[in-house]
Amino acid sequence: MSREVLDDARALAARRLYAALAAGDRDALSALLHPDFIGHAAEGLPLGMGGEHVGAEAMQSKLWWRIGEHFRVRADARQFASLEDGRLLVSGSYVGTSRRTGNALDAEFVHIIGFAPDGRITSLRQFTDTAAWHAALDGPERLQTIDYSVTDGVATICLNRPDARNAINMTMARETFEVARRIAADDSVRSVLICGNGPSLTVGGDIDFFQEGRSEAFGDLIQSMTVPFHQGFDVLSRLNVPIVTAAHGAVAGGGLGYVYAADLVLAAEGTRFLTAFAGLGVSGDGGGTWHLPRLIGVRRAAQAYLRNTPITDTEALDWGLINEIVPADELRDRALAVATELANGPTKAYGAMRQLLRESWGNDLPSQLAAETRVIKFTANSADAAEAITAFPQKPHFTGG
Amino acid sequence: MSREVLDDARALAARRLYAALAAGDRDALSALLHPDFIGHAAEGLPLGMGGEHVGAEAMQSKLWWRIGEHFRVRADARQFASLEDGRLLVSGSYVGTSRRTGNALDAEFVHIIGFAPDGRITSLRQFTDTAAWHAALDGPERLQTIDYSVTDGVATICLNRPDARNAINMTMARETFEVARRIAADDSVRSVLICGNGPSLTVGGDIDFFQEGRSEAFGDLIQSMTVPFHQGFDVLSRLNVPIVTAAHGAVAGGGLGYVYAADLVLAAEGTRFLTAFAGLGVSGDGGGTWHLPRLIGVRRAAQAYLRNTPITDTEALDWGLINEIVPADELRDRALAVATELANGPTKAYGAMRQLLRESWGNDLPSQLAAETRVIKFTANSADAAEAITAFPQKPHFTGG
Amino acid sequence: MSREVLDDARALAARRLYAALAAGDRDALSALLHPDFIGHAAEGLPLGMGGEHVGAEAMQSKLWWRIGEHFRVRADARQFASLEDGRLLVSGSYVGTSRRTGNALDAEFVHIIGFAPDGRITSLRQFTDTAAWHAALDGPERLQTIDYSVTDGVATICLNRPDARNAINMTMARETFEVARRIAADDSVRSVLICGNGPSLTVGGDIDFFQEGRSEAFGDLIQSMTVPFHQGFDVLSRLNVPIVTAAHGAVAGGGLGYVYAADLVLAAEGTRFLTAFAGLGVSGDGGGTWHLPRLIGVRRAAQAYLRNTPITDTEALDWGLINEIVPADELRDRALAVATELANGPTKAYGAMRQLLRESWGNDLPSQLAAETRVIKFTANSADAAEAITAFPQKPHFTGG
Repeated sequence: MSREVLDDARALAARRLYAALAAGDRDALSALLHPDFIGHAAEGLPLGMGGEHVGAEAMQSKLWWRIGEHFRVRADARQFASLEDGRLLVSGSYVGTSRRTGNALDAEFVHIIGFAPDGRITSLRQFTDTAAWHAALDGPERLQTIDYSVTDGVATICLNRPDARNAINMTMARETFEVARRIAADDSVRSVLICGNGPSLTVGGDIDFFQEGRSEAFGDLIQSMTVPFHQGFDVLSRLNVPIVTAAHGAVAGGGLGYVYAADLVLAAEGTRFLTAFAGLGVSGDGGGTWHLPRLIGVRRAAQAYLRNTPITDTEALDWGLINEIVPADELRDRALAVATELANGPTKAYGAMRQLLRESWGNDLPSQLAAETRVIKFTANSADAAEAITAFPQKPHFTGG
Repeated sequence: MSREVLDDARALAARRLYAALAAGDRDALSALLHPDFIGHAAEGLPLGMGGEHVGAEAMQSKLWWRIGEHFRVRADARQFASLEDGRLLVSGSYVGTSRRTGNALDAEFVHIIGFAPDGRITSLRQFTDTAAWHAALDGPERLQTIDYSVTDGVATICLNRPDARNAINMTMARETFEVARRIAADDSVRSVLICGNGPSLTVGGDIDFFQEGRSEAFGDLIQSMTVPFHQGFDVLSRLNVPIVTAAHGAVAGGGLGYVYAADLVLAAEGTRFLTAFAGLGVSGDGGGTWHLPRLIGVRRAAQAYLRNTPITDTEALDWGLINEIVPADELRDRALAVATELANGPTKAYGAMRQLLRESWGNDLPSQLAAETRVIKFTANSADAAEAITAFPQKPHFTGG
Repeated sequence: MSREVLDDARALAARRLYAALAAGDRDALSALLHPDFIGHAAEGLPLGMGGEHVGAEAMQSKLWWRIGEHFRVRADARQFASLEDGRLLVSGSYVGTSRRTGNALDAEFVHIIGFAPDGRITSLRQFTDTAAWHAALDGPERLQTIDYSVTDGVATICLNRPDARNAINMTMARETFEVARRIAADDSVRSVLICGNGPSLTVGGDIDFFQEGRSEAFGDLIQSMTVPFHQGFDVLSRLNVPIVTAAHGAVAGGGLGYVYAADLVLAAEGTRFLTAFAGLGVSGDGGGTWHLPRLIGVRRAAQAYLRNTPITDTEALDWGLINEIVPADELRDRALAVATELANGPTKAYGAMRQLLRESWGNDLPSQLAAETRVIKFTANSADAAEAITAFPQKPHFTGG
């Protein structure tokens, strides 16, 4: 056979190898690999995947299937070159994501593949950017139900189960806690925006999820959801940065917690707020029994809980549950504008105000006056206060310091 | 004398006996009874009245006057029959009520009356349904100022001094406590309706009663009323079932407590709410200093207390003191409809909501979130929650279990 | 020279003396006084000024300049009479005020002035009402920024830096505490009116003062102001008499404390309420983090703090921050009328109501019901309650007893 024909045959075998790996096709692999196959993966790979793997079985179980277990990834072979010794050099990139973290993997590789006279593959030596593999695994856990990002000091928590009208299942409950922790740990965050994709901010607990879970006691199921859900609101309540929530569509059940968690709430025209708990025969979660009487008064809170009467957008505004009603198609922009305004405000003073307002309910007046004195001294010594006094009556430029 | 004439004379003497007893006429009795009179009352009578009573005096003090002391009752003699031995058999019924409980007494009797040759009565043997006598005494104390009933799970507390516009005197204060205890002890009650007969729900403390009581210190008098009155509201606040109040006319002074005690309040058009305490130079009762700032805010509560400014129906609605204004002639029906709706709701969840909302003011947010988690688990394990999840999206049929 | 001419010359010298003293003209004094001058001041004068002062220097440093240091006063000489021995008798009054207390000094004097042959003054013996001098010094400290008075039971606290729109500097902070203490100690006070002279009730902390004080840390400066300022509000909150505030123009920053301190607030049309703290990068004082959530709800309080959004007069009324909007030119009269009404009310009941409403937030319902019972007994035993019960249904005449 001519060299070219040989090369073509080897490239073809290599292509078949990549196709079999992409398809997870064990039979095709068995046909492609020689019984004496020896693989050598890059030493620095994570998950114990690096080093020599003797035999086709070892190569599959220790490298290839392990990759598939932890990554959703494809080996994208772009160039095939014949080496002097008859081996084939294939270069390209692994492209995909970590299954756990959702982080992208984009790592170049070089494979040097050896062949038996019968055309079967006898060796594969892998070189790749092993640090990229670690980075993809090491990031925070990937969020499935919340679209989370931080831009220009604004952390956005966007509920993202639009087809389920952002109904809260176990995952969303846990991820609410997760994003709250990320914000608390991120000094670059100076304000938070909570919003939702799809027709509603959130309709509350996912009834489908509750119905599926009926094999275990409903009480146990809802408790296991409520614990991380409430941990999330606990962390949000103690953040040192202000929170803006954009409410639209229906906001119901435990989902009202995203409204209660906010300092400021903008609502789209037509938004309706509904406790919904009485309809399910349960007492409720999300902090409503703490917040609602303080927001709209005892009488209206009782009606919302006992009779499950919806609160309309205008009632919500008149009663002090929200700050502003805006056209639905402007909601996200307007809420982001407020969050951005706050992200450019005196962050230390905002944190202190939030703390004072939060602790107010447990203090008598003399204690609160003492707390105000203590805290105003602290904030008056901030860089932002110095800037404001110096700039006055010009508008200060706050840096959050 | 012929037998008939004799019988007529004896029947006449017996009729005179019943007339004398009805009139409490001691002189007539002395004339009717022979000095050797021996009575024998049914053995099982209550209050030590049963057994033999030797002599007219003993019969009066141990039986007849004791009956009169404890009952408002009449011996209704219907049939008179002569026995072979010359005695007279009288049959009929005791008809009346217990003075303490107000319970009805309707007990059949047979009296066998013996006569001396001179026509005077020498013996009376009484047979009667002694259990009926006990039942009349054993019931709960009769209410004089409140019309109380339980129907279809709704306990109705209807203030019932219409001529005094349901002004609160000592009896009403005590009976408020009494009905609260009855509700707390009655598992058949699933909601409460508070209303009033006459032109007003209640104008508050009864000034006539206060003016009459001026021989003792006013402070002692009002304290002795306020103690049971407040015990009543304390019990009502801890009920596990929701409370609806129907307000109309004037609602003033301590009488506002019946509004504060409610979860939901419906008011007739034109209802006016008035603290009234400043006009009497006193600080007030009924829980207003706890409820009013939480219901309508500090500023308006101060005005209501210090300047005694009436709160109109529309102000009450705008400020969150009431839930709804209805036409006066529909008030009772509409309020009953709400109470009935609640009586058919998820009773365990309602009880838990009431508890959480009540305890909210003493908790910080983390504690309240923890309480919500604990309680939602409990209510989610109720039969009503199971029914709701199973029925969803159909409307559940709640049984309160 | 004739006697008359001599007398004229001596009277002229004396007039020059009073003019030199009024002008503080040391050169003129040197020319008028003989080197052998001996003065003798009234023995009982305060500040060590009494007794003999040998020499012109001693007279100036021990008496005349010391008077000028402590008093703003003029010696008003009205009569000049020649004595037999050639001395001059001058009678008149010292008229002025104490610099520290602001109290008036009006003390008669007689000066007997002796002359040398050359016409210079050799002696001055002073007689005066020394008790008046002590009284002027001993009164309470003179207020510089608050116009304080008590009339017909109404104590008026009128902020009085109109040119600075009653901006709060260190002095006003301290004097707020001072007047609060005076009210607490004055049993004749039965209500308080807080108001302000000039275009605004108060624009809050004095930025000029803050900018001047930048040599020390801003935090230390603001703390040293906030401590007495809050002590003032603490005392006001525990007064046993009601407080009415008349708000107008801008009410901003810590100055909102004068609104929070009130039970009742009347506001002129167009009044605007503004927290203003965020603009200075500080967390705020004046008790707003305690009062504002309880007055207008959590959501609106957060907006007022974080975004510094002004609250208009109508919002303030709708949300429960104020009780009434009145035409600007009627504000002071209307607020005084309310304060006067309250000064003629049942003072003991008012004090009890204030206490109950203040302590309400820290009590659960059973504790508050118990407190109401305790306190209504106390107030029902007051003279005013006795008067009210006796007079009913006539209007009572309350004396505050």
